[in-house]
Amino acid sequence: MSLENKTIYFTRGVPPVEAFPTQQLQECAATVLEEHSDTVLQYHPSIGYLPLREWLAQRHAAQPQEVMVGNGSLELQGFLAELLTSPGDVVFVEKPSYDRAITAFSKKGLEVVSVPLEGDGYRVDALEALVKEHHPKFFYIIPDFQNPSGITTSQAKREGLIKLAQQYDFWILEDNPYRDLRYWGEEIPSIYSVQQALTQDEGKGKVFFFSSFSKLLSPGMRVGYLIGPQDMLKKVAKIAEDAYITPNMLSQGIVSDYCRRGWLEPGIDRLRNLYRPKLETLIDALETHMPQARWTKPEGGFYLSLYLPPEVDLEHFRDQAHEKGVVLSDGNGFFADNDGDSFLRLPFCALSSEEIREAVKRLGLIMQAANRE
Amino acid sequence: MSLENKTIYFTRGVPPVEAFPTQQLQECAATVLEEHSDTVLQYHPSIGYLPLREWLAQRHAAQPQEVMVGNGSLELQGFLAELLTSPGDVVFVEKPSYDRAITAFSKKGLEVVSVPLEGDGYRVDALEALVKEHHPKFFYIIPDFQNPSGITTSQAKREGLIKLAQQYDFWILEDNPYRDLRYWGEEIPSIYSVQQALTQDEGKGKVFFFSSFSKLLSPGMRVGYLIGPQDMLKKVAKIAEDAYITPNMLSQGIVSDYCRRGWLEPGIDRLRNLYRPKLETLIDALETHMPQARWTKPEGGFYLSLYLPPEVDLEHFRDQAHEKGVVLSDGNGFFADNDGDSFLRLPFCALSSEEIREAVKRLGLIMQAANRE
Repeated sequence: MSLENKTIYFTRGVPPVEAFPTQQLQECAATVLEEHSDTVLQYHPSIGYLPLREWLAQRHAAQPQEVMVGNGSLELQGFLAELLTSPGDVVFVEKPSYDRAITAFSKKGLEVVSVPLEGDGYRVDALEALVKEHHPKFFYIIPDFQNPSGITTSQAKREGLIKLAQQYDFWILEDNPYRDLRYWGEEIPSIYSVQQALTQDEGKGKVFFFSSFSKLLSPGMRVGYLIGPQDMLKKVAKIAEDAYITPNMLSQGIVSDYCRRGWLEPGIDRLRNLYRPKLETLIDALETHMPQARWTKPEGGFYLSLYLPPEVDLEHFRDQAHEKGVVLSDGNGFFADNDGDSFLRLPFCALSSEEIREAVKRLGLIMQAANRE
Repeated sequence: MSLENKTIYFTRGVPPVEAFPTQQLQECAATVLEEHSDTVLQYHPSIGYLPLREWLAQRHAAQPQEVMVGNGSLELQGFLAELLTSPGDVVFVEKPSYDRAITAFSKKGLEVVSVPLEGDGYRVDALEALVKEHHPKFFYIIPDFQNPSGITTSQAKREGLIKLAQQYDFWILEDNPYRDLRYWGEEIPSIYSVQQALTQDEGKGKVFFFSSFSKLLSPGMRVGYLIGPQDMLKKVAKIAEDAYITPNMLSQGIVSDYCRRGWLEPGIDRLRNLYRPKLETLIDALETHMPQARWTKPEGGFYLSLYLPPEVDLEHFRDQAHEKGVVLSDGNGFFADNDGDSFLRLPFCALSSEEIREAVKRLGLIMQAANRE
């Protein structure tokens, strides 16, 4: 089928099949079953596989006891939320934020309040006012190449958030699965590593760091992790044990072997080279075909977000796009207050550069027509 | 170390390392990564891997749409309980029952009422009276080689339960992970398959069947499954998706390949031959060394249970056993009402026959001394 007639899905944040290091994973699976079958095929404490926890601890300058590995970071966030909150408590997310996290918190009976984002992260005045009003139990934040907006929180705002969390006694849940996928620009330290440098008095220990191998290796292997204070992790591990006894040990063994062979960093380089041209193409196509729209300029990750001009009706726009063979997600799920009327998330990693250019061209034609109406 | 000085753990229901078909799993891992990496390394609908669901459907005379596969059956039970109940509802378990299931239901705010067991399953009079009193949302039952008692529910009681569930409108949650591990005696159809033979009027559709590959293949791979009405499974799958997006697909792919090669049935035969002599030894040792005690005579599974004579204090007995190098579990966790004062679960599969005989010999000496006191 020619590209012109193809339906293009700007919908899910999934890696393309060519991102998976299948042969390497085969080797790792063979090795771990050869050498560690007695551990990876057996029941195991819910805190996770020690060799992987040790490797992650070293990578994040933490202690192995401060690292827990589970079946994906979303589920670990659910367990931690269970520990930190009771139904009726207020928690904060960014506006917009990851739809599945919003759902998970809402299902626990939490009141999810959203903190408006601007180009370099949360709006300082808004956050301070909301904190004083609501006294949240935690702020769930995706500081690097945020899902869905693509925005990265500035260093100053990371430092400010740690101070505010200390002052008003709330936890920071830093979800950072895209951090390693920076395509250009300068790296900013994670919130977790910023707080590591602080003294106890300045707010040390108020941050949990989540990440995952879903975007770096494989989502189907379901390996995510949590770094935080040891005493709290023991309690999270008990909640996990009550839910599933043991996490998937075979996957953890394979991922551990992959990391210990030194394959993760070259693998990340390969992904950066795979995804960078896609994002460059997306930005170039938007500049060419949709100069009227406002969009974020992410420096990495999986998503760019687009704000339609106020005169364009989003539902109508999505319907027209669908007719022209471009499928777009409903953006409302990313807004805890359902206020996503002009917002479109464009996940670009699973599409080819040609598909990205063609899809944006079609969207541009629709917008031009809308402007003429 | 000689056996006489060795500490023997009669504690956890885990398979011994020699139970794992490691080489076969290596082959399956290589194959599934070779042929299906685009599926098993990717995100996937939470209902599970279709080839495995199809294979399981055939094995249980169900439809693939009636089969959901997740990360172990305990977690699936949690999801189903979330669907079927609200906090404050009453649910039934056997007395005793699986401690982790009792915990999972209690943590959801359910009132867990226990139905006394006798040699061939639940006590009919007690169940009927409790049903009339409490109108439970479901009865969680382990009909084959029950954990922890080792008891098997008779065919008549399986049929009676289905009728009662129909009459009083409650669900049956049949947890049946040990069913294939029958060492002697005649197989009784699962509750699920008994109800399949019924007409709609007689109670069809009130049973969910759970099982797992933890005891047949590997606990560390975390593959469990649920069979039940399609419309209900869709809702359970939504709850699972909200919790973990996608179950572990690599494990499901490996298990599917293992089953489709025809390796499961010979594997089960091998396990029966591995475990049968252990149970024979345990029963023989009990007859020799502990004639005063009452115990169940399981025909399969992982557990035999022992009821101490009323004059023997369980806590004191466990302390003395520990001193003599036999570690025994606290039995109270298996009793929703904490009424496990004379109960001991003896999981025999992870021990050698020599260890089993030695451990029972030591327990017998303690009991004889207790009787002389």
